[in-house]
Amino acid sequence: MILAVCLNPALDVTYGVDALRPGASHRVRTVQRRPGGKGVNVARVLAQLGEPVRVLGLAGGPTGARLAAALDAAGVAHELVPVAGETRHTVTVVAGDGSDTEATVLNEPGPDVTPGEWADLLDAFGASAGQAAAVTLSGSLPRGLPDTAYATLVRRCGDVPVLLDTDGAPLAAALAARPTLAKPNADEAAGLLGRPVRTAADAAAACAALIDAGAGSAVVSRGAAGLTAVLGGRAYSAGLPAPVAGNPTGAGDALTAGLARGLAAGLAPHPLLAAATALAAAAVASGTAGSVAEGLADRLRPDVVITEH
Amino acid sequence: MILAVCLNPALDVTYGVDALRPGASHRVRTVQRRPGGKGVNVARVLAQLGEPVRVLGLAGGPTGARLAAALDAAGVAHELVPVAGETRHTVTVVAGDGSDTEATVLNEPGPDVTPGEWADLLDAFGASAGQAAAVTLSGSLPRGLPDTAYATLVRRCGDVPVLLDTDGAPLAAALAARPTLAKPNADEAAGLLGRPVRTAADAAAACAALIDAGAGSAVVSRGAAGLTAVLGGRAYSAGLPAPVAGNPTGAGDALTAGLARGLAAGLAPHPLLAAATALAAAAVASGTAGSVAEGLADRLRPDVVITEH
Repeated sequence: MILAVCLNPALDVTYGVDALRPGASHRVRTVQRRPGGKGVNVARVLAQLGEPVRVLGLAGGPTGARLAAALDAAGVAHELVPVAGETRHTVTVVAGDGSDTEATVLNEPGPDVTPGEWADLLDAFGASAGQAAAVTLSGSLPRGLPDTAYATLVRRCGDVPVLLDTDGAPLAAALAARPTLAKPNADEAAGLLGRPVRTAADAAAACAALIDAGAGSAVVSRGAAGLTAVLGGRAYSAGLPAPVAGNPTGAGDALTAGLARGLAAGLAPHPLLAAATALAAAAVASGTAGSVAEGLADRLRPDVVITEH
Repeated sequence: MILAVCLNPALDVTYGVDALRPGASHRVRTVQRRPGGKGVNVARVLAQLGEPVRVLGLAGGPTGARLAAALDAAGVAHELVPVAGETRHTVTVVAGDGSDTEATVLNEPGPDVTPGEWADLLDAFGASAGQAAAVTLSGSLPRGLPDTAYATLVRRCGDVPVLLDTDGAPLAAALAARPTLAKPNADEAAGLLGRPVRTAADAAAACAALIDAGAGSAVVSRGAAGLTAVLGGRAYSAGLPAPVAGNPTGAGDALTAGLARGLAAGLAPHPLLAAATALAAAAVASGTAGSVAEGLADRLRPDVVITEH
């Protein structure tokens, strides 16, 4: 079982409108609601692959109840520690049609987590992490938690591989706790590095910085430009010869899912990077965060070009 | 008891943001959720006044359950006939601060009501309308209902005063069923009249058209410019000597609440128009749809200037 930690899950709402005009009243054409948050997206991808997975998170209020029901409906096992605050919605307003769309995102702040609720989460984590084949720690922290929250979870993983996908102060603090693998995207890595991450050389420098700061391994993704990795002390790059068309939202979570699955299975660097890269591309093709285009990852995997540096 | 019919209620969500930028990601600063829809606003104003009131509507899904809970919390009695579809949200994004704000509204379509669900609503209406001192029919119809829906309800009111606040084809059909009073706003009256309603003379013409089409009495509001009425065959205008500052959203629903309360109490035209005009102004001052500034309506009532033409 892979344990996908999602401390600030969401109910993601997507509205389709003809055009978004500030100050106007709009008729919403289409409404979609799905469980969201980076850790939930990781879990949904793993569940789609048939990989045993459990979401561990904090949830509260009517939106928290709805999130739990949506996870049940999606067949994703979960343990949502109750909080007094209300789970957040995100509202994405997609204007236009297929070929020419613009997405405007409204993120509710989410609950303010109390020390007692965080203690409950730590208890639940302690009871589950030891049974996991891998742990993923994804996304921003809800209000009320200390920047050291992920660091605390990393330290409690013992020998279980733990994969970290966050940014800012929680990333910096958690690196010192020596996670198995850190996987920020280019923007998040830039925050740590203190300068933009645009080229493969920038990404290699970011991986080196992540490892210097405490990560056992590091993967920095640059979207369609591929990823740069340091695994077991060796440097790699991985990518597809041609980009896949689609929606990149959630591709980073699919990459995390693929890396976690590979770590859990004890894959060697080449097959691990090939599977994870193909999975991220299949997420782009699916068009929806938290899902991958069926069968595409298997077809793309042999095409992934991996170079050891 | 006043029966406030709300066939397409909503859970109204208001997001406060610094600025709304299409295509960008936004941190929502404040989140408010309250029961909405025009009929619900009418009922909330009446409940605030201590007037016995019951909302009769159609509601479904988790949002319908949440609407019911929010009405309970607000102390508004309700009978929500279950539907398979999901009650709509409206999302209003308010950008800026106090003195300079811009509101962008996103209206979900709401449920598609089946003939069986409409039959259930008619049964519930039949059981309640006879006990009511007045009935209000407010707002747009949900998808699936015929344009004659309000006409059917008007015909089933018997001797109970029924007040109609809608527009378009449902208004035209319901007028033929001879409601006690029709109260469109200026824009809605313009749709019936086939030309803009800007002046007091336009509003008088709109009242005449409403009565020609079947209404027993008519009130056409022009916001801060006051209202024009034909009650018991006599023409009136009513207004305050100076406009009240605030947010006009929901003022029309407070006007409906005041008119319904006056009809239920059998008030003569002068006190009825004075009370309803003062209540609408107190709603503007409250800043929030479905509520009135406490005590202000009582203070404003003597100031309302009523002219019989």
